[in-house]
Amino acid sequence: MKLTTLITTFILLSVGVTFGQQNLASTDSAMIRDIFDVALVNGESYENLRSLCKDVGARLSGSPEAEKAVRWGQALLSTYEFDSVYLQKITVPFWERGDVESATLNGVELELSALGGSVGTDGKLTAEVIEVDGLDEVAALGKDKIQGKIVFYNRPMDPRPISTFESYGGCVDQRYAGASIASQYGAIAVLVRSMTLLEDDHFPHTGSMGYKPDVTKIPAAALSTSSANTLSESIKSGKGAQVSLEMNCRTNPDVESFNVIAEIKGSQHPEKLIAVGGHLDSWDLGEGAHDDGAGIVHSVEVLRIMKALNYQPKHTIRVVLFMNEENGNMGGKSYARYAKEANENHVAALESDRGGFSPRGFTVKGDSNQVKFIQSFKQLLEPYGLHYFENGYAGVDISPLATADNMVNPKILMMGLVPDSQRYFDFHHTDDDIFENVNKRELELGCASLTAMIYLLDNHLNGQL
Amino acid sequence: MKLTTLITTFILLSVGVTFGQQNLASTDSAMIRDIFDVALVNGESYENLRSLCKDVGARLSGSPEAEKAVRWGQALLSTYEFDSVYLQKITVPFWERGDVESATLNGVELELSALGGSVGTDGKLTAEVIEVDGLDEVAALGKDKIQGKIVFYNRPMDPRPISTFESYGGCVDQRYAGASIASQYGAIAVLVRSMTLLEDDHFPHTGSMGYKPDVTKIPAAALSTSSANTLSESIKSGKGAQVSLEMNCRTNPDVESFNVIAEIKGSQHPEKLIAVGGHLDSWDLGEGAHDDGAGIVHSVEVLRIMKALNYQPKHTIRVVLFMNEENGNMGGKSYARYAKEANENHVAALESDRGGFSPRGFTVKGDSNQVKFIQSFKQLLEPYGLHYFENGYAGVDISPLATADNMVNPKILMMGLVPDSQRYFDFHHTDDDIFENVNKRELELGCASLTAMIYLLDNHLNGQL
Repeated sequence: MKLTTLITTFILLSVGVTFGQQNLASTDSAMIRDIFDVALVNGESYENLRSLCKDVGARLSGSPEAEKAVRWGQALLSTYEFDSVYLQKITVPFWERGDVESATLNGVELELSALGGSVGTDGKLTAEVIEVDGLDEVAALGKDKIQGKIVFYNRPMDPRPISTFESYGGCVDQRYAGASIASQYGAIAVLVRSMTLLEDDHFPHTGSMGYKPDVTKIPAAALSTSSANTLSESIKSGKGAQVSLEMNCRTNPDVESFNVIAEIKGSQHPEKLIAVGGHLDSWDLGEGAHDDGAGIVHSVEVLRIMKALNYQPKHTIRVVLFMNEENGNMGGKSYARYAKEANENHVAALESDRGGFSPRGFTVKGDSNQVKFIQSFKQLLEPYGLHYFENGYAGVDISPLATADNMVNPKILMMGLVPDSQRYFDFHHTDDDIFENVNKRELELGCASLTAMIYLLDNHLNGQL
Repeated sequence: MKLTTLITTFILLSVGVTFGQQNLASTDSAMIRDIFDVALVNGESYENLRSLCKDVGARLSGSPEAEKAVRWGQALLSTYEFDSVYLQKITVPFWERGDVESATLNGVELELSALGGSVGTDGKLTAEVIEVDGLDEVAALGKDKIQGKIVFYNRPMDPRPISTFESYGGCVDQRYAGASIASQYGAIAVLVRSMTLLEDDHFPHTGSMGYKPDVTKIPAAALSTSSANTLSESIKSGKGAQVSLEMNCRTNPDVESFNVIAEIKGSQHPEKLIAVGGHLDSWDLGEGAHDDGAGIVHSVEVLRIMKALNYQPKHTIRVVLFMNEENGNMGGKSYARYAKEANENHVAALESDRGGFSPRGFTVKGDSNQVKFIQSFKQLLEPYGLHYFENGYAGVDISPLATADNMVNPKILMMGLVPDSQRYFDFHHTDDDIFENVNKRELELGCASLTAMIYLLDNHLNGQL
C-alpha cells in the first residue's frame, strides 16, 4: 500500500469512526432530551405517588395495607399494558405497633415511637434512665451501672458529612443494635434519639432493630429529638431521670406477600435483564412518600416513558416493586433466589430508595471498570444536573442479586439513583413522610434520570464489561 | 549539561512543582473542610434568617419595614465586630399595594396580586377579558380585538428546561411588558398568569412591571395559576369572560434608603475588593425568605465564617446588603456609581439571589479565561456537591459594577451562586416565601460554598486574570 493510500484510508477510517461516534452521541442526546420532556411535560409519577400515598397510605409488611399496595401496584402496572405483569410470592414478617405507645418523664409525655421489631413492655415499666453516647459506652459502664435501667442512646447524627446517608451510617448502630447490647448488661429497655439532623424535631423516627440470639428481648423506642433533648436536660440538671414506658407492639407469625413485577421484552437480548426497582412496603407512619413511594413511581415511570416514546429496548427491562425492604428484605432475598433458580441473567440492576429529591447522579457498586464505564456517560447527563457517578452502595432490595449464593452473572452492574440527600432525614420513617413533602419536578427529574441511565445501559452495556 | 543531569534536574523540578501544588491543594482542601464544618456545626445563617423573616418580615423598598431591615442589617453586622460597618445613602421608589385588591368572575373571587409598579383602577373596572399567549398575539389581534378589553396573558412557564430560571426568562416578558403592549392597542387592564411551574397554585406571584414612556398606564395584576385556569376555562366554555377588577395600589414619591455594608480589611491588598451580597429588600408578600433573605444571610456568613476561623483575607472582603433589587435596582446602581467615584478596584463581585436551596455551583459572567480559572477549583469543590461552573448571569445587584460607565477594573470577575432551582418558583414573590420553607442544611451549604469560593479567589485570583 502506498503511503498516500494508507493516509487516505486512515482519514476515511477516522472520519467513519468520528461520524459513527457523533451519530451515536447525537442519537443518545436526542433520546435523553425526549425522555426528560416526557417526564416533565406528561409525567405520571406525581399522580401515581399521590394515589399510593392517599389511596393506600402507610403499608408495613404483613399488614392489610401492604396487601392493598400489592393490588395497587398490580393494577397500576396492568393499566400500562406492558408485556407482562405478575406477582411473585414471598413470606414476610408481620410486626405490629399495637395501640398503646407512651412514655412519661415527670408526668410529661415524651414523643416516641416503638422501633420496628421491638417487643412490648407487658404493662407499664418505670425505671431510671441512663444516657449514653453509643454502644461502647454501655460496655464501658458495665453491669453495675446499667442493670435495671433504661438505656438512652443520645448520640446525634454528625452534621459535617455532605451526604446525610454518611451521617446516618455513623449513628444507626444505636437504633439497630442498642437493645441487644444494653440487654447484655441488664438494661430493661432502651430509648434512642431519632435518626435525623433536625435538632429540635417533634416527630419520632422509627426504623428497624434486631435482637441478637440469646439476649433477653427488651423494648426499644425512638424519641423525637425534641423529647431526647428534654430527657437529656432533665437528667443532667437533676430534675429527674425516671421514665414510665408502655408499649404493646408485637411480632405476629409470618404471612404471605408478594413482589410485583412487570416487563418489556428485549428485542435483541430478551434473555438478558435490566431490573429497576424500589420498595413497595413502608413503615406504618406517614405515607411512605419519599421512603420509598418515590422509588416505586420512579421505577414504574422508566417502563412507561419507554413505552410512551415507542422505544423498543434491546434487553428485557423489568420493574420490580419489592416487598419488605424495611424489616427483613424478604422481597429482595426471595427475588434473587427465584432469579438464581431460573438462571436469569441480570446484566444490570438499579434501585431508587433515597427519596424523591432533585437527582444528582448514581452510585455504582462495582469495580473501577464499571465505574469508568458509567462515567463515560457523564457528558450526556451533565446538562440534566447529573454529575455524581462514583463507587457506592446500590440498594438493599437489589443487593442479594450480587451475593455469591445468588450470582448468575458475576459482571452484573449494580447501581443506585442518588438524589440530593439534604432533606431526606427530615422525613425518614415519620408521620411527616407524606405526599405533600415531595416536589413534583424533583420527582419527575428522578424518573427521567433513571430512564436515561437505563436507556444508555440498554444501548451500550452489551459486551462492554 | 549531560543527559542524566538534565533528567535529574527535570525530575527535581517536577517534584518541586508537584510538592508545591500538593501543599497548596492540601492547605486549600483543609481550609474548605473547616469552612463547611463551621457552617454546618456552628452556623448562624438559619437563626439570622429567622430573625429577618420574623422580626422584620416583608420589606418592600421605601416602606417602614425596609427601613427596619436596614437597621436590622446594620445591627447584625455590628454584633460581629468586622473592621467597619456603614450605611450608603440611596434614593428608592416607593410603590404601595394599598388595601383594596380584588377581581371577580361571575361573582367568584379570583386570587390576584397587583404587579409592583402598577397603577390602581380608580374605582371598580369591569370589562370583557381576552386571553392571549404572549405579547406577539396582542399585536396580531390588533386594536379591533383589544380595544376596551382586559388582556389576559396566560402562557405558562415551559416545564422542559432543567433550570427553572430559563423557563422564567422565557415567560416573564408578559409580566414586565404586558401592560405597555396591551395599552398600545387600547386595553384597559391586564391580568398575567403567575410566574410559577406549579400548575394549580393558589398563591398569586407578584413581581415588577414597567410602563414604556408615552403609553397610557393601565392596571396590571398577577392571577394565581389556579385562578388563571378558572378564568381560561370560563372564557373557553362560554360561561363568561366579564371580570371586575379593583385595586388601589399607587406609586409615592421616592424616598431615602440605604445599602448596608461591612468589611474585613485585606492584609496584602487592602485596596483590592472582593464584594459579596444579596438584596435586603423583598416584595411585600410573605417574608422574602428565599428572595432574598437567603442571599443576605449567605453573604453575612462569609465574613462571619472567615472571622470564626481567624482567617485574615489578603484582599478586602466586603459584604453588601443591597436595597431595592426588586423594583428599580437603585441599590446596585448607586453602589456602582459610588465605587466609580471613589475609584474602588473590585477584583471580584459575587451575588446570591437564587434562594436558599442545596448549592450546585456558580455562574461566571465573563470570558472563557475567567470560566476556566474558576473551573480549576472544581476538584476542590466537587466533594461538596458543587459541580456547575459555567458562563452565566451573575446577579442584578452587582451587574452595574461591570457596565462601561462604572467600570474601574475591566477584569472584574462577576459570579453568582447557583443553588438547585427546582423549587424556587414555587415560592417566588408570594405569601408562601416564608422562613419555614427554607431548609437549614441547604441554607448552610450555600453559606459554606460562597465562603469557600471567596477564600479561593482571595488566595489565587491575584495576577491570574
